[in-house]
Amino acid sequence: MINNKNKIWKIGLVGFGNVGQGFVRILALKKDTLLKRYNFRFKLIAIADPIKGSVYDPEGLDEFRLIELIENKGNIKSYPKGRKDIDSLTLCRSNDIDIIVEVTPTNVETGEPGLTHIKEALKHGKHVVTSNKGPIALAYPELKELAKKNRVMLRFEGTVLSGTPSLNLILEAMAGVDVNKIEGIVNGTTNFILTKMEENMSYEDALKEAQRLGYAEADPTADVEGWDAAVKAVILANVVMKGKITIKDVIRKGITKVTLNDVEDALRNGQRIKLIARVVKEGDSIKASVKPERISLSHPLANVMGAINALTFYTDNLGPVTIIGPGAGRIETGQAILTDILAIHRYYSES
Amino acid sequence: MINNKNKIWKIGLVGFGNVGQGFVRILALKKDTLLKRYNFRFKLIAIADPIKGSVYDPEGLDEFRLIELIENKGNIKSYPKGRKDIDSLTLCRSNDIDIIVEVTPTNVETGEPGLTHIKEALKHGKHVVTSNKGPIALAYPELKELAKKNRVMLRFEGTVLSGTPSLNLILEAMAGVDVNKIEGIVNGTTNFILTKMEENMSYEDALKEAQRLGYAEADPTADVEGWDAAVKAVILANVVMKGKITIKDVIRKGITKVTLNDVEDALRNGQRIKLIARVVKEGDSIKASVKPERISLSHPLANVMGAINALTFYTDNLGPVTIIGPGAGRIETGQAILTDILAIHRYYSES
Repeated sequence: MINNKNKIWKIGLVGFGNVGQGFVRILALKKDTLLKRYNFRFKLIAIADPIKGSVYDPEGLDEFRLIELIENKGNIKSYPKGRKDIDSLTLCRSNDIDIIVEVTPTNVETGEPGLTHIKEALKHGKHVVTSNKGPIALAYPELKELAKKNRVMLRFEGTVLSGTPSLNLILEAMAGVDVNKIEGIVNGTTNFILTKMEENMSYEDALKEAQRLGYAEADPTADVEGWDAAVKAVILANVVMKGKITIKDVIRKGITKVTLNDVEDALRNGQRIKLIARVVKEGDSIKASVKPERISLSHPLANVMGAINALTFYTDNLGPVTIIGPGAGRIETGQAILTDILAIHRYYSES
Repeated sequence: MINNKNKIWKIGLVGFGNVGQGFVRILALKKDTLLKRYNFRFKLIAIADPIKGSVYDPEGLDEFRLIELIENKGNIKSYPKGRKDIDSLTLCRSNDIDIIVEVTPTNVETGEPGLTHIKEALKHGKHVVTSNKGPIALAYPELKELAKKNRVMLRFEGTVLSGTPSLNLILEAMAGVDVNKIEGIVNGTTNFILTKMEENMSYEDALKEAQRLGYAEADPTADVEGWDAAVKAVILANVVMKGKITIKDVIRKGITKVTLNDVEDALRNGQRIKLIARVVKEGDSIKASVKPERISLSHPLANVMGAINALTFYTDNLGPVTIIGPGAGRIETGQAILTDILAIHRYYSES
């Protein structure tokens, strides 16, 4: 531990969409609690977002004011103080910042712009916390090495199951176990649709309901074809099992061909259809798949309904351990960012 | 972080019963993995147990040899090297030791001998890792203060749900959330008996079966009357919710009066009887209870069967988060000890 008891952590936020807004809302509401409970002092000194607006003030931004502006105007361009000409790369290289929170939109093909942001921040000696799946799925080994070389932390709990502990659970809270298999329900949209189908709603109607509730995008391909779950399987394989797989290595089948008949037939046989992401280690090889499967009602994942997610880690010393919680949401993912920042605080300053 | 990359952690083990043996077995099997994966170097330099024997060797003990002796002779008195006249208090005060692992039998009335061991070790600047429920349930605020004063860590993941993450889960992997309620199945013996009763076995026969399998003691009072679960409720209340309750504050009812009729009647109504430990925060007051309850089959804890345990944390930012895993066992609790030691290693030496 560094004996720097009253350090004020200076945070820069790259991206101010749902997750960034959720995170800032939590910071606003928990400022006093974070000081009292964790002796955590911080200043959010900059936000950079090409659509919502950018602002930089080394004195610290007012989180309540930012949320108010987003709610009332949809952007922060009229924030009353600070410089507005800041861009995301300048932020990632700024000497003023200790921690970069990278929450730009996920691109699983190029990882950009997140990948460049994260690399630049690490190279410039900043800790990085992200919920951006693209860069982690595409470049985890390289980014990990870069963080190590620059003696900073790269944390990304929010990439899998939002704030429900998944990576921190297995890597830290279960440190020392060996994992030979991971199974999970890691996409809320598809689990919601399958749950509705058990209530006798057709696939098409269930999808519409998911879209109405904001669980599914207008173009639902990433969810219903299993791409989102496959990206998470890649992250689990590479981070937890030290694999080097890519999304092309994941055997992937979505839920678009699951019929009401299939769902009913499973139920009649004491089973349920779930979109199961699975990563299995066999010797030095890792196999990953995402596909709809019939599981028994007594299976640890069988009772995970609606938009809730879950992961089961099959371990040597503990057998199967299952965690169940939310898999998405702005506050839920903002919570993942907060947890990771508090971990950096625990490691790098003495309380 | 302290820049002490290749520190060799010197460990002293106080108590060599089930948990101590499980822990040493894990150390023996994982020595190479721990070095490669975590850069964790250690020497187990002493064990003190009034029945199994004591041995001290600053060069480090041979874990495989210790396990072999226990398995073949039931004690380690004929270990071929080292001093045999070491006692537990001397160990807790020894300048040679960095981490004391306290795993003597639990006494929930006095906390002894664990309480004295832990206090002495902390006072002498040693980190302490324990699975001993007595001292934590009785004296957590005092012990925490003592650890802080001496700038060392006191960790006790194994006191609740063995190696299944419970305290580290909520305090670290979900740092930043507020918890207003905790519900759980925290005693494997009673859950096993209730599960067997659903298979139409009488309470008496199910208890005998639990005793035959080693889940229940010859005197099953601590389990079936809810004392064990009540102690865990006290730990959860005081550690997670910063309470100051004692076991006398827990409303406690065991399962001895649950009949086959009760179990069947619940099932007919789509419910299940479970021994639920519950801790609720209402303003500044904390209420804790342990009692058999009817829960709906869709309740997060309803599918937790047999000797498996589970906890649901009701949080502000994540809603309910449930963890399911083993609640007891020598290897499972040994794993909790290992996880806590690796946490100390992460905080106090740079890898």
